[in-house]
Amino acid sequence: MLRKLLPLAALAAMIAFVVPAQAQQAPTRGRVVMQVSDNDPAKWNLALNNAKNIQTDLGAANVDIEIVAYGPGINMLKAESVVGTRVDEALAAGVKVVACENTMRNQKLAKQDMLPKVDYVMAGVVELMQKQQQGWAYIRP
Amino acid sequence: MLRKLLPLAALAAMIAFVVPAQAQQAPTRGRVVMQVSDNDPAKWNLALNNAKNIQTDLGAANVDIEIVAYGPGINMLKAESVVGTRVDEALAAGVKVVACENTMRNQKLAKQDMLPKVDYVMAGVVELMQKQQQGWAYIRP
Amino acid sequence: MLRKLLPLAALAAMIAFVVPAQAQQAPTRGRVVMQVSDNDPAKWNLALNNAKNIQTDLGAANVDIEIVAYGPGINMLKAESVVGTRVDEALAAGVKVVACENTMRNQKLAKQDMLPKVDYVMAGVVELMQKQQQGWAYIRP
Repeated sequence: MLRKLLPLAALAAMIAFVVPAQAQQAPTRGRVVMQVSDNDPAKWNLALNNAKNIQTDLGAANVDIEIVAYGPGINMLKAESVVGTRVDEALAAGVKVVACENTMRNQKLAKQDMLPKVDYVMAGVVELMQKQQQGWAYIRP
Repeated sequence: MLRKLLPLAALAAMIAFVVPAQAQQAPTRGRVVMQVSDNDPAKWNLALNNAKNIQTDLGAANVDIEIVAYGPGINMLKAESVVGTRVDEALAAGVKVVACENTMRNQKLAKQDMLPKVDYVMAGVVELMQKQQQGWAYIRP
Repeated sequence: MLRKLLPLAALAAMIAFVVPAQAQQAPTRGRVVMQVSDNDPAKWNLALNNAKNIQTDLGAANVDIEIVAYGPGINMLKAESVVGTRVDEALAAGVKVVACENTMRNQKLAKQDMLPKVDYVMAGVVELMQKQQQGWAYIRP
C-alpha cells in the first residue's frame, strides 16, 4: 500500500507545482497592442500618451507596447506626419510602431513615404488579432 | 527505490506532454469578433474591409470572423442598409454577421426589417464579452 | 508490473481531472472592463447602457463590470457630469466605476471635484491592460 501511495504523493506535489505556474502565467509581463485606425491627430496623440503613461507607471523594461497603424490611421506614420517627432520619441523609448502594408498598397504608399524608423506588418488587423490571441491586451484609443 | 522512480519518470514525461499542449492552444486558429456600434457607414465599410483582409491573408478556412452590430450600429443590418450588398458578400464568404435583439426591441425592429441572411444574438455586448473570454480577439473598427 | 501500472492509472485520472478544470476556467464568470476615453456624453450613455444590459441578461451577481474613465473621458465622472445620476445608479447596481488619477493630475482635478462614490486607479490605461491580461473582456463603447 505504501509503495503505491508514495509515488502518488510525489505526483500530487508535482501537479500542485505545475498548475499554479500555468495559472499565474498571464500577469507576469505587460503586453499591449494599440490600434490606430482613425485619420485623427487627436487619436494619434492619445495613443502616444497612453504608451508613455504605461511606460512611466510600469517601467519601460517591464512592458511590451506595439502601436499598429492601418486604414485611415496610416497617415500617422507618413513622413510628413504632424506627430512624427513624437513617434520617433516613442521608438527611442522602446515602443514598437508598425505600419500596415495592405493599407500602404491600397494608398500607393512606399516605404520612402513613411517615417524612416517604423516597422511593417503585412496586415494591421491580422497583427492585432494574433497578438491578442497570444495574450496581449488591446487598447483602441 | 527503482520501483518508486520509474512511475515518477513516466509521470514527468506525461506532464511535459500535457502542459505544452495547453500553452500552445490559443494560436492554433484565428478567431475574432468585430464590434459595430456606430451609426456610421464609414465604420461599417471598415469592418467589412477588415474581415475581407483577414480572410485574404490567412485563408477564409483558417479563421472565424463574427461581426456584431448593436446600439447605433444596428442600422448596418437593416434591409435598406447602404452596405447591404457587401454584408451579403461577407456572409457568402463565411463571415458570421449578427444583430442584437435587445437593440431591435428598443428600436421596434422586427426580423423582417433586417437583411434576410443575418443571424441574431440576445445581446450584442454580451456576445462580444463571452467570445473574448472564450479566446477570440476583439476589433473595434 | 501491476505495481507500476496502478499509480500511473491513478495519475492519469488525476491529470484528466486537473486539465479540463483549467481549460474551462475562462467562461465560468463574466468579467468585462469598459473604456470611456471620449469627451462625449453619447458614449457615456452607451457605456452605461452596455453595463445595464449585461447585468439584465446575465444577472448582476454573475458578472463583474468595471468602467474606466480616463483622458478626455474623465469628464464623465466630474461632480457636475450630465450622467451623474446614471453613474450613481450603476454604482448602486454593483458596477465598479473608476477614474484615472494620471488624468486628474494633468487636468488639476482633485477628488472633491469628482462624483463622490467613484473609485480611483493610478492609470486608467494600465488598469485596462492588466484586467485584460487577467482574463477580463474589453469593450470600447
